[in-house]
This record gives sequence, C-alpha cells and structure tokens, in this order.
Amino acid sequence: MALYERILITGAAGRLGSELRKGLAPLANTIRLAGRTPFSDLAEHEEQVVFDLSDMKATIAATEACDAIVHFGGAALECSWQTILNSNIRGSYHIYEGARKHGARRVIYASSVHAIGYYKLEDHISVEAPVRPDSLYGVSKNFVESLSRLYWDKFGIESACLRIFSSFPKPADRRMLWSYLSFNDCVRLTTAALTAPRISHTVTFGLSNNTVKVVDNSGANHLGYLPQDCSEPWKAEIEASTEIPDPNRSSVKYLGGWFCELDHPDDKESE
Amino acid sequence: MALYERILITGAAGRLGSELRKGLAPLANTIRLAGRTPFSDLAEHEEQVVFDLSDMKATIAATEACDAIVHFGGAALECSWQTILNSNIRGSYHIYEGARKHGARRVIYASSVHAIGYYKLEDHISVEAPVRPDSLYGVSKNFVESLSRLYWDKFGIESACLRIFSSFPKPADRRMLWSYLSFNDCVRLTTAALTAPRISHTVTFGLSNNTVKVVDNSGANHLGYLPQDCSEPWKAEIEASTEIPDPNRSSVKYLGGWFCELDHPDDKESE
Amino acid sequence: MALYERILITGAAGRLGSELRKGLAPLANTIRLAGRTPFSDLAEHEEQVVFDLSDMKATIAATEACDAIVHFGGAALECSWQTILNSNIRGSYHIYEGARKHGARRVIYASSVHAIGYYKLEDHISVEAPVRPDSLYGVSKNFVESLSRLYWDKFGIESACLRIFSSFPKPADRRMLWSYLSFNDCVRLTTAALTAPRISHTVTFGLSNNTVKVVDNSGANHLGYLPQDCSEPWKAEIEASTEIPDPNRSSVKYLGGWFCELDHPDDKESE
Amino acid sequence: MALYERILITGAAGRLGSELRKGLAPLANTIRLAGRTPFSDLAEHEEQVVFDLSDMKATIAATEACDAIVHFGGAALECSWQTILNSNIRGSYHIYEGARKHGARRVIYASSVHAIGYYKLEDHISVEAPVRPDSLYGVSKNFVESLSRLYWDKFGIESACLRIFSSFPKPADRRMLWSYLSFNDCVRLTTAALTAPRISHTVTFGLSNNTVKVVDNSGANHLGYLPQDCSEPWKAEIEASTEIPDPNRSSVKYLGGWFCELDHPDDKESE
Amino acid sequence: MALYERILITGAAGRLGSELRKGLAPLANTIRLAGRTPFSDLAEHEEQVVFDLSDMKATIAATEACDAIVHFGGAALECSWQTILNSNIRGSYHIYEGARKHGARRVIYASSVHAIGYYKLEDHISVEAPVRPDSLYGVSKNFVESLSRLYWDKFGIESACLRIFSSFPKPADRRMLWSYLSFNDCVRLTTAALTAPRISHTVTFGLSNNTVKVVDNSGANHLGYLPQDCSEPWKAEIEASTEIPDPNRSSVKYLGGWFCELDHPDDKESE
Amino acid sequence: MALYERILITGAAGRLGSELRKGLAPLANTIRLAGRTPFSDLAEHEEQVVFDLSDMKATIAATEACDAIVHFGGAALECSWQTILNSNIRGSYHIYEGARKHGARRVIYASSVHAIGYYKLEDHISVEAPVRPDSLYGVSKNFVESLSRLYWDKFGIESACLRIFSSFPKPADRRMLWSYLSFNDCVRLTTAALTAPRISHTVTFGLSNNTVKVVDNSGANHLGYLPQDCSEPWKAEIEASTEIPDPNRSSVKYLGGWFCELDHPDDKESE
Repeated sequence: MALYERILITGAAGRLGSELRKGLAPLANTIRLAGRTPFSDLAEHEEQVVFDLSDMKATIAATEACDAIVHFGGAALECSWQTILNSNIRGSYHIYEGARKHGARRVIYASSVHAIGYYKLEDHISVEAPVRPDSLYGVSKNFVESLSRLYWDKFGIESACLRIFSSFPKPADRRMLWSYLSFNDCVRLTTAALTAPRISHTVTFGLSNNTVKVVDNSGANHLGYLPQDCSEPWKAEIEASTEIPDPNRSSVKYLGGWFCELDHPDDKESE
Repeated sequence: MALYERILITGAAGRLGSELRKGLAPLANTIRLAGRTPFSDLAEHEEQVVFDLSDMKATIAATEACDAIVHFGGAALECSWQTILNSNIRGSYHIYEGARKHGARRVIYASSVHAIGYYKLEDHISVEAPVRPDSLYGVSKNFVESLSRLYWDKFGIESACLRIFSSFPKPADRRMLWSYLSFNDCVRLTTAALTAPRISHTVTFGLSNNTVKVVDNSGANHLGYLPQDCSEPWKAEIEASTEIPDPNRSSVKYLGGWFCELDHPDDKESE
Repeated sequence: MALYERILITGAAGRLGSELRKGLAPLANTIRLAGRTPFSDLAEHEEQVVFDLSDMKATIAATEACDAIVHFGGAALECSWQTILNSNIRGSYHIYEGARKHGARRVIYASSVHAIGYYKLEDHISVEAPVRPDSLYGVSKNFVESLSRLYWDKFGIESACLRIFSSFPKPADRRMLWSYLSFNDCVRLTTAALTAPRISHTVTFGLSNNTVKVVDNSGANHLGYLPQDCSEPWKAEIEASTEIPDPNRSSVKYLGGWFCELDHPDDKESE
Repeated sequence: MALYERILITGAAGRLGSELRKGLAPLANTIRLAGRTPFSDLAEHEEQVVFDLSDMKATIAATEACDAIVHFGGAALECSWQTILNSNIRGSYHIYEGARKHGARRVIYASSVHAIGYYKLEDHISVEAPVRPDSLYGVSKNFVESLSRLYWDKFGIESACLRIFSSFPKPADRRMLWSYLSFNDCVRLTTAALTAPRISHTVTFGLSNNTVKVVDNSGANHLGYLPQDCSEPWKAEIEASTEIPDPNRSSVKYLGGWFCELDHPDDKESE
Repeated sequence: MALYERILITGAAGRLGSELRKGLAPLANTIRLAGRTPFSDLAEHEEQVVFDLSDMKATIAATEACDAIVHFGGAALECSWQTILNSNIRGSYHIYEGARKHGARRVIYASSVHAIGYYKLEDHISVEAPVRPDSLYGVSKNFVESLSRLYWDKFGIESACLRIFSSFPKPADRRMLWSYLSFNDCVRLTTAALTAPRISHTVTFGLSNNTVKVVDNSGANHLGYLPQDCSEPWKAEIEASTEIPDPNRSSVKYLGGWFCELDHPDDKESE
Repeated sequence: MALYERILITGAAGRLGSELRKGLAPLANTIRLAGRTPFSDLAEHEEQVVFDLSDMKATIAATEACDAIVHFGGAALECSWQTILNSNIRGSYHIYEGARKHGARRVIYASSVHAIGYYKLEDHISVEAPVRPDSLYGVSKNFVESLSRLYWDKFGIESACLRIFSSFPKPADRRMLWSYLSFNDCVRLTTAALTAPRISHTVTFGLSNNTVKVVDNSGANHLGYLPQDCSEPWKAEIEASTEIPDPNRSSVKYLGGWFCELDHPDDKESE
C-alpha cells in the first residue's frame, strides 16, 4: 500500500525533477509528471500533464486527484522579472490554488538558498531567520514560502519548503564543499518531507552532510531527514585546483555565493 | 533647509496618504503626490503624478528626481488575486525599480499587521519573527518586505516596512483597543523612518501607545518613533457597547483579527 | 453593564483579598466573598460563602454561577506540608474543578515570587523561565501554575497567575525597594487580568514601578497592566536605617529573599 | 568498587522498574527494590522493602542508607485525582523527604512526556520550556520537577527528571515512531544520570535515537546519554498497517498524543 | 549616615571625573580624589592622592581605606599601545589589586562604547553581546571588563562597567543625537551603580534617554538607573547644520563612530 | 601545492606545539618554528626563529613572509602578573602587529577553557557567552580574543581562537573525562581552522568527542572540525581509582576546574 494515491511532480524534466521521478516512485501508486513538453518514456506507474505554470486553468487542472504535490517547476536561476513573475510567482499561486481546490494534503516546494543568500557563513542562521534574498529569484522563493504558510494556517494544507543549496552531480567549486546536496540526499529529503508524521509548515535547508556546516537546521528535525552523502570525496581535488579565495568577497562571504555578485537582471535587458 | 529635496507619496489620496500629505510637508522642498486620478487642490510645495501602479513605465517615471519615496499605494484590503498581483506585487516592484534607477535613498513602505496576522496575541513576536500572513493581501506585504530587503542588501537603498495595525480616525471595536494607530502617530512613525540616522532595512510595528501590548517592537528602536496617542479615551464606550468575545475565536485570538476568518477571495469570484 | 455577572474572591478576608473586595467592585454585578469565617459587613453588591478550601464539595459549590474567580485564598507563607497540601494544592484543585464544572471563564490566581525564588536579581528572568521555588509554599504555587495551564489547554478556561512579590502597605526593608507591589497596583494588576481581551494562560510578575527592576515582565504585556506606584518615597528612610547587606547572602542574592534562608518547615515540627 | 553503596528503586515491579533492576546492578553494591507486594526472586545483591508511597513514615524509612534513589513508582497513567494525589504527589514528597533526612546524594525521577504534552511536534522545545501538562498525571510530574528543584537549590540533593516518552518493548503505532524509548536506552539514560560528574537539577527528554526528532535535548548533554536504539526496524510494518492520520488531530499534533484527547478523569468517576 | 565611608575617584581632574567629584559627594563621608597632579581646591569632605596609574605600589596604596572605587582614570581616547598598556591595562590591574588587598566592596569602571564599537546601530545588542572593540582603547576596556569579572567571581568584589557613549556638555554632531550621555545622567548612572542593592558584575550602556535607541540595556535594569536628559533640545540645530550622512560609511554604520575609521595608532608613530 | 607558503608556529617546542609541528606539515611549503631556544632537529621543510615574545621587534620580524600564524606560545598556566603581561598580553600584541605589518591572512590562537572557566557544566554556554575568566591566565586569553576581533573588523585578518580544554596524552582525572582534547584532535581542529573557507573571527571550544558534553560549539560549525577521539577508553580506570567528587566544589562545578580554586598568583609572590 503506497503512502499516496497520486503525487504530482512539477519540473519533472529538470535536473532534480528527473531524480525525484525515480526516487519517489515507491511513495505513490501513480506519479504524475508535469512539464512544458511531453515525456516520451513514461513508466507504467507514471502519467503526464503538459502545460505552462503561468496558465492558471491548466495548472489547477493538473493537480486534480493528487493527494501530494512536489513542486520543483519554474525558473531555477536568476532571470528577468517577467519570467520570475510568470513562472515562479504566478505559477506557484496556481499550484497552491490547485491544491486547495482539489484537496491535496501536502506540498513539497523547491525553495532555495537564495531565499536567504545574504547571510554570512558564520551567521549560522536557523530556519526561522528573517529572509534575505540575493536575487529576484530569491524573492520569488520568499513569496512561495509566505504563500504556503497562508495555505497551512488558513486551509490546513501542509507544506515543506526545501531551501536547496547546490544540488548537482558533484561539487564543482570550493563553495560547494559546504553547499553540496547530492541527488540522492535531495531524494531523501523530499521523501522525508512526504512521509513525516506531521510537517505543518516547515522551512528546511537542503544540504548533504558536509563537514563545514554553515546553517542550523534543527528547527526541521521533525522531518526525519538523514543525509547520507557529503562533499569530502571531492575536497582534495577542488582545493588543489583553485586559489584560496578572498574571505571578504561577496561570493565567498555570503550563503548565496555568486548570486550576490550578479547584476540586476533587467539591467541587461533594458540596454 | 528641508531634509529631502522631493518625496514621492503613493496612495496620496487614500485615508493615510491624505494624512501623510499634510504631515510630511516639513521634510521636503517638494511633495510629489501620486494617485490614479488628478488632485485638484495642490499646494505650492506640492506637485502630482497620475498613473496606475501596474504601469511599469509610468511608475518608474514618477520616481524621477525623488530622493525619498513613501509607498502607501495599492490595494489596502484583501481582494482578488489579480488585484493583489497588479497593484501590490507588480506595482511595488515598479516602485523599487524606480528607486533603483533614479537613485532614491530611502523608501518607506506601508506594510501591515496582516503580514503576520496568524500569530496569537500572547506570542509577543519581535520584528524578526517568520512571516505568517492571514490573506493574499498579507502575502503581498511579505513580498515587498522581501523585495525591499534585496534592494538594501544589493543596491544600498534603505527601507522601512511599517506594519500598520489599525489606523482609523478612532478605535471602532474591542480589537482596536490594542491595534489602534492614530493618524498622528502614523505620521510620527513615517517621519521617524524618514529622519532616523540609519534605517538600513527595518521592519516595525505601527501602533499607538495602547495599554494592551501584543508585540515587541524593540528591534526597531533605532527609528526613534515615540507614539503620543493611545486608545484609552474610547475604551469605556467600546467595552460598554460590545459583548465579551470568545478568546478562542480566530478574530480574537490572532493579530490579524477578522482577516483570519475571511474566505479566500477567489472563492466568491469564481461562483 | 458590568463586565462579569459574579466574581468569586477567595481569601477575601486576607490582606490582599480585602483590597480586591473594594477594588474589583466595578467589574461585576455581584462579588461573592469566600472565607473560613463569616463576613459581618457585606455591602449590597456582595454575598458570601463560608468554607474551607480543603473541602472539595463545598469549594466546588462556592464557584457556582461565577463567571470569574479571583483565587487569593490558601496559606500565604511557608508552612507545614500538611497545610500546603490541604490549603494550596488540594484547595486550588477544588477551585479549578469548580471553574470547570460551573463554567467560569477566567481565573486570576495569586501565585508568588516564591515560585521562582532561587533566581538571582541579575538574572532578569522572563515569565517563561523554568521554575525555581524557594519553599514548599513556592512548590505549591508551581503546582497551580501547572494545573491552570492544563485547564486552559484542555478546557479553555483562561488563567492569569500573578507572581506577587511584596504586597504590603509600604516597603519594610531594602529588598522591598525592588520587590514592592502597592495595594493599588495589586488591584490594577488583577483588574487588568480580568479585563484584557484575551489572556489564555498568562504568568506575570506582580510589581509596582520600582526603580530597580529585577525581572522581565514583557511576556505579559497583553494584560495591559500599568503600575502607578513605586517604592521611591520610602527609599531614603529605609536606606538610612539599615546596613548595606552582603551581596552574597542568600536573602540578598535571590529573588525569594529570606525564604531562601528558611529551614524546611517540617524540621521544626519533627523536633 | 561500585559507584553507589545502595540504590533504592521504587516501582521496581513495574514495566520499567523491572528493566532497571537488571540494568543498574553494576552501579551499586546493593539494589533495594521497593514495591507494594513482596518480590519473590531476590538476587544476592538485592534486598526489598514493601510499602505504599502514600505512607510517609514507611517511605522515609525505605530510603535509609541509600545514597541514590531511582524513583519510578506511582501511577503511570492518567487516573483519578485521589490516586494522583496519593501516589504521585504525596508519595514523591515522601521520597524527597527520605532523601533529605537520610542523606541520599542523587535522585533519578521518572517524569514523562505528559509534563509537556501540549506542545506541538514542530515546536522543538528545549528542556527549559514552560510546562504544558496534558493530564492530571502530567501535572503531578510537574509537581515533582518543581519539588526536586527545591531540594537541589536548598539542600544540595541532585536530581535528574527523565521525561520518558514511550517506553515499551517495541513501537506500537505511528506516534511511537518518534516517541519510542527502548528499554535498553531507558537503562542507558538512567545509568548516565547516575554516573554523570554533576547533574545538579536536570530535566531531560527520554527518547531513543529515532529519525524523526521533535524536541531539543541539548540542555541535558552533560548527562552523557547516548541512545543506541531507534524505531526504524518497525517503521515499514507500522506505516503499512495504519492510515495516515489527520495532522490537526490533537493526538497527532501534540507531543502528549492520545492523552490530549482524554476526558478529565473525575468525569467518569462522578457519573 | 553616608552609604560609603570613603570613595576613591580616579581621573578626578578629567571631564567626567570633575562632574563625579561634585555629584557623588552625598554618597560618602570622604571623597578621595586621584590625579597625576595636585588638586588645589579641595573641599572639606575631600582628600587627594597624586600618582600615576602605571605605578603599582602607589596605586595600590591609594586605594587603602576606600570601600568603593570609581575608576575613571587612564587614557580616554585611542592612543599608542604603550600608553594604552600602561594607563589602561596595567593601571586598571593595579586598581583591582588595590581593591582586593584593601577590601573595597565595589568598583565602578568607566568602560566605553568602543568596547563594542563594531556593532551596527540596528543590531540592538544586549549587554551580553560578544565584544567587538574598534580600537586599542576599546581592547583595553574589554580587558578591564574581563578582569573585573574575575575579581567578582573569585574574590567577591562587585563591579559595574559603564560603557559610556558620548558624554559631553552637549551633543556635537548627528551621531551624538543617539549616543549622548549628559553629565547629569552620567552622575545618575554612577550613583545608581553605587547604591543598587546588588550589582555583582554588571555591564551597562551609558546613555541618556535619547529618542533614537540603538542598544538594549535591559540586562542592567537592576542598577535602577533612570536617565532624565535627552538630546532632543539640540536636534533641530544639528540637523540643520550638517549633511545627511551616507548610511554605509563606517562612522555612521557602527556604534563606535569615527573610531572605526581611525588608523592604527602605531602607524603614525612608526613613521 | 600546499595551502600556505609559510606557517609560523609559536610555542613550537611546547606540548601542543610539538604536535602541531608534525601535524601541520602538509599545509605549508615551509613551517617556521618559533621558540625561546634553538631547535636542534629541523626537518627540510622547517626553519626556525629564536626570540622572546616580549621582544616586540623580534616578534614582528619573526612573522615576516608568513601567510598564516599558529600562535601557541606564551605562558600556558596561571602565573604571575608580570609573566602574564609580558608573555601573553604584550607577546600576543606583537604577534598581531606582525600579522598586520607583514600581511598574514589568518591567525590561529590557542585560547583556553580558562577564558570562560567560571561557567557551570550545566550552563551549556555557546561560543558567544560573555567571558568569565578563572585566573589572570584566563584574562589574558580574553585580551587576545578581543584583540583578534579588532584585527578582523578593522584590518581583515581572520582569526580562530581555540578554547582548548584539557589537551594531554590521556585523561588524567574525572574532569578530563569531559574536558579531554586528544593531541590528534587538537591537530584536526587547528587544521580545520587553517583550511575552512572563511573563518572571519571565530571562537570555538577545543574538545574531543567525549560522551559528557558541557558546552555548545555549534557557533563554530563553519570550521568543519570533526573530532575523532574521546575519553571513553580511560573512563573505567579513572572512575575506579577516584572518589565521587562533591558536585558543589568549585573544581567540580565550574568549567575551569581547579583553576577556580587557585589563589591569586601574586599572593604567593608578595609573601
């Protein structure tokens, strides 16, 4: 007996969505994959819905009959205000409206380190620290964290907002030695959020068990997430091939890394 | 010598905007009033700009040559998602883009108790408590609080987000005995935010000096706001004319009051 | 229209009960006085019940038809375990059972500084600090603080536990310069607890506005208590007539004062 | 050389007492077993005392010559006020008086999750959180926590109050997946409390190393308790055989579980 | 009857020492003035000692028969390491050794805002925040704060470390609008520290009741200090005559003001 | 490619310095050993400088061309004020001046538990707790912690202050069961401090992974220190051969152990 009847995964064609598609299979009888283009390789337990998150009607329809939603869709990097607005802000509102209208019990949302990117490494913030986004992308993550809080307090829909740090096949630079979240740990974290006895509204940091720890995740211990991976295997190689960075450079000093050094996206557009 | 060359007031025709129009006059050589319809009674030190906040180009243009912006425009109550999106989310983004492009130094934003409406009276939250909006309106306030934090951290534009509780001519019900902010205190608070030596990014609760105190505003003490009014003069009358409420009713239990008992705005629309 | 139909005051013949009998009169149509011996001077708005708190049946009966209870009865000093047990522990249980069975909405309980007597002056404890009683008397106060919490969480009966420091006609020694609670302020505090819009379960320190402040009462600000008195008028006289005490003596070091130097009550009994 | 000359175990015939009887043997030359009926199977290092905790004289006598007391006796579930009063409140007072009169150095007390049963899972309370009992049983645990604090502050008798969650042979339902304390971990915790270099007055949560963690036990790290067991082995079986519960049901939402849904014990009696 | 038999004031010829000489007269039968050159205007209740703080023997001798010491001597600004070392570090050690050898009960020490000068205005630090000195001068203040803590914990000598902000005849610039401590309030603060019932080891911020508040002094409320002055009377004049400063300039951003922009003192020397 | 070009180790002939000399070799092309007498056994990657820390010129010269400094030199126990002053206070100032003048990037400083020796075991202090030194030795550690903070805030030189508890070949008494830091863990901690991506100014507790934990080191988690050793192997032997200590004896009660029972060092001198 699977825990859920049907889980909707948005962004299912993406880097993390592809991992979740595999990793969450045991949790539901049916996995419904959402993307902007069709999936050509559906397994038996899978079905698909193709739409754009900015389409309110289609998005709400896609959530029908889903008792859980894993919302990893939308823009995954800093980009123009119009894209952030349509994909991340409007799109996520549509998802939560779908959850409300169609009775989903739980939503797992891919928030990001960029929601709190302007904290320093040594600040060791808890999951309750005030937001400090480092980009429009980060602001949109804060928006959904706020929106999902409303849907819990008012409508009783549980949410976990996973502030994913750096989830890639392997750590690619010195910063990722502390910000790395392995794909398998990302699946473990999402699984924990879907199976914990009660998550109410939870914000949590998505990190593997790296040696250097820069945040305090204890406020989300009720999720029961136990990371199994860490960045150590790549440490020597990365340190040998890169310079020691200036500790006061924004990309070194702040959790958000190079996002803190990005220009405002519309500057480039408007030129 | 006025502190500012030109202050833009959005929502200048509104209940609080009208008060600020008078109260902030000493702080600038010119007060620029913004509204959706023309003002017919401009004083000598006043000028006007007429536009809709959802119009990005017009809004940015309206901020030109303003070294401070007092942003009280937009929807002031729970309303439909389209209105919230256009007036409060998109509109406020346009204002901050204007501030960035035209070099405003400081923005004072009318946030609201509804940004943290789901806290209980006895929680005594500080200005650093995680957000708990009670409505889409509250979510939009959180959005601007997040956005303004980005503009401080990344662009050095200072902001004060005033979480106004109940600013009316006089307290109208039992809840306002603790949530009342007199018009004069609202002007005092805005003035403090405009004149404090350094506000960086400050969130503060907008309340008069009422006897019953339900939040901890000490994290904003650097604003130098000293409320002079309180709800006591109306206490006896209000208590005599209303029943003792049930302490566990949402509108009594939570800071947000009756907003916590509102249905979702789109429910009515969609019917 | 009085706020309450009928307030029961236990310990109504005591030092503080006598003050409350006068001071709370405006809050109820009827004040029911409880004591172990009859009152001979009932006013028109007063009625009486005579019983011992250790009598469960009589105590519960005394609470009938009372929508509020001001529970100041029981032993007011350290005394033998049997007395503490019967008057303060069993007696208070009877009161709360009366409140539950007869539907009282709110109970105001005379707790005491001796509930947290082993904290040091410079600890500046909040109302949330773990208990540190200085006597069996203090332990019994902790018992009722715990019991009343249960009756709020489970049965929705609101309580305020007033940790009264030193409520006497005037400060009598150096310690009372910071621990003084004037009779009028005691009435003000009880009135605030009876009239605040929502008290849920509140613990608060009962002190006048003395210059030397040794605790942090901000967690009870929702009561709206504003002390009007202080110990200053007696300061010069007391300081002139008493030696400077040793700061490391228990009775000087700890909030509980001389209670911290008391022997265990049963020691004396058993000799 | 054993650490203690003689340890008294109350409730030694009970579910946990039986485990402690075996597990604590290495710590003392003599284990004195206390119960209401005789033990028929005493080992060489064991002796017994038979009495009822409500008998002050007998209880005090039973503590003679014991340098440590492991107090697990008394009612172990919600029950009538008379039973709570006699077994848990009066009985524990007798134990502490015995410790004081006969010079025991350390008392380990079986407190309970029900001392703080009305906190929510996501509250992650520390050992210093204000009490929130979920039953008369829980109130009696708070009473002893307060009483033992007095005996430390005033008489120098060290105590550890172990807030035991769910100590059974194995987890029996979904809640026990996070509340489980194995018998062996219960013995480890009691052993740690008896052997730590200094415990002063310590409150700690008694839990195995379960994956889902709902409290913050760091304030008791000086005990040196290292749980070795967890509920994982039973997880799949329990989840497969039980429905997903409603996260807002009291028995799911609160630490105290089904105690929070219990009626008041005397209601049934009085019928 | 004066509170003290004899108070030693070091730095008695300095800006603040001169005020204290007058202001503290009522507190002692004899005021002993210490300075590096003779005082020519001794009053009847005054006596003098002339020595350099770097002279250990003379400094210790000067403390003889004093039951309180008000230690305002030493370098009062950033200066060379040799001066800081001799006047502030060695000199203060001599004072505390004098207190220990001659039995002074209480020492009031002139610490400084520069002990925590690198905190930002909006940090609202408490008196328990880790030190962040802005100069060698500030480091020497931290040294004495640490030293005096030792003398309390080990030898029972009470100390109050007054972190004086800007104590001048009147506020001289925009920063002093929040950092001002009037001379009379400086005397009030020192008096409070000398007369409070128990100060143990207290760190406190020395500020008048200015409107803009940048620190949280509640941890020193047991001193009973009530400032009576504020910077408001000078506000208009100062604001009219000075530019609005850049909020990100070090001298505006940090509590320490222009000390944060000072070069290291020995840089100039070594040239 | 080594992380550093040249690391200076002061106190390189000492108990811990000898371990670091070996353990840090992989981190630099050259290890420069500093001591008061020549080293006779230099390895190829080693060089030496011989001087006394109280010699400013020599000390500064010794730091030339070092991009990191591991400062373990100076008095390692309570001793006379003159020694503390010259070796620990003046000597450390010279080291930091060397770092500033010669451009060292990072300094690792051997602070000590005695910087916070007067906290109790159950206080579980964080790395941000106010200092409570237990000796002049501890005061000197506080001095350098303050000084190094200045050099970070003003000059951008990173420092880690390692509050080493008991670093010996093996635990020697009951206290060391919780205070033990193995030599290998000491090297691991220093290595972590030298290799962490950003340490800014970090205070951390130097402890192995002992079972009984008495402090909260989470504020230094960004160092990435993972202790591998613990005191367990010696526990049984130590407990069997020593009496149970009195929990209220200063050397048992406080972190600083027997330092808290030491007389003031100059008392002995002056006899």
